[in-house]
Amino acid sequence: MSVKRLHIGPRLSQVAIHGDTVYTAGIVADDTNVDVAGQTGQILDKIDQYLKEAGTDKTKIVSTTIWLADIKDFAGMNSVWDQWVPKGNTPPRACVESKLATPAYKVEIRVIAAR
Amino acid sequence: MSVKRLHIGPRLSQVAIHGDTVYTAGIVADDTNVDVAGQTGQILDKIDQYLKEAGTDKTKIVSTTIWLADIKDFAGMNSVWDQWVPKGNTPPRACVESKLATPAYKVEIRVIAAR
Amino acid sequence: MSVKRLHIGPRLSQVAIHGDTVYTAGIVADDTNVDVAGQTGQILDKIDQYLKEAGTDKTKIVSTTIWLADIKDFAGMNSVWDQWVPKGNTPPRACVESKLATPAYKVEIRVIAAR
Repeated sequence: MSVKRLHIGPRLSQVAIHGDTVYTAGIVADDTNVDVAGQTGQILDKIDQYLKEAGTDKTKIVSTTIWLADIKDFAGMNSVWDQWVPKGNTPPRACVESKLATPAYKVEIRVIAAR
Repeated sequence: MSVKRLHIGPRLSQVAIHGDTVYTAGIVADDTNVDVAGQTGQILDKIDQYLKEAGTDKTKIVSTTIWLADIKDFAGMNSVWDQWVPKGNTPPRACVESKLATPAYKVEIRVIAAR
Repeated sequence: MSVKRLHIGPRLSQVAIHGDTVYTAGIVADDTNVDVAGQTGQILDKIDQYLKEAGTDKTKIVSTTIWLADIKDFAGMNSVWDQWVPKGNTPPRACVESKLATPAYKVEIRVIAAR
């Protein structure tokens, strides 16, 4: 069974596809000069794009991990998440606090999806 | 390949089933007025129930993530975990410290299982 | 669908194999009297060994989680990671800060791989 990768970098790839399962990296925002809601929106846009490139979409997500640099941003992140998730197809999710690679990142999100 | 979901809420679902793989959300205790052992017991009971509803059981778990709000609760959590895991079929596990959605939660557990 | 396990202990197994997917536990170093680069090297050696025993290798990794006890060790961990990952087959990765089971552990790594 071969693995297909998308957006392959020297350190990591953004996406790996194995059979009918799609795994993303932990995704962060490109523009970090915004609050947690703004960063969450950028991340979810990227996830939509990556899932599309992998032949699937957000209605097929089976697992989500959300790391917040400060758990006080829980409500701010959810204000965007709750609008984004598809009604009737909301994914399993865990959301916890962890410092991220740089202090500029307020949130990082990783998903596993069916295709 | 379609995804089946159980306990679907507006923000997340507790379980997603994709083919022969079952993914849970990060599960927390309902009654948080107890110590980490008590919360762990409640969570593992819920996981047993969710796995049963998904057509599998704890002998088929392939991955577990345990987040402790305070790593000092490692022994307390394990006192319940070690009794719960099936001899000969213990799952791969990672256990780390992360603050959780509210300070009342001392532990959160997520599993992936075969079915 | 049966699950095969490797290095089965009373608390956890180091590896579970389900069909063509391999899940490891969170792997830590055996000799913790070294810096984060040394611990990372030991962990990646173990992962190579576990993947080999499971019938696969690092070119097939589809998901990686790296927990650093101190995110300041990001560069030190990467100095070893960047040499280890196979060019053109780098895996999706998330790297965050979490305290680990004992203060001696500076890094813990978990992977999912195709086989």
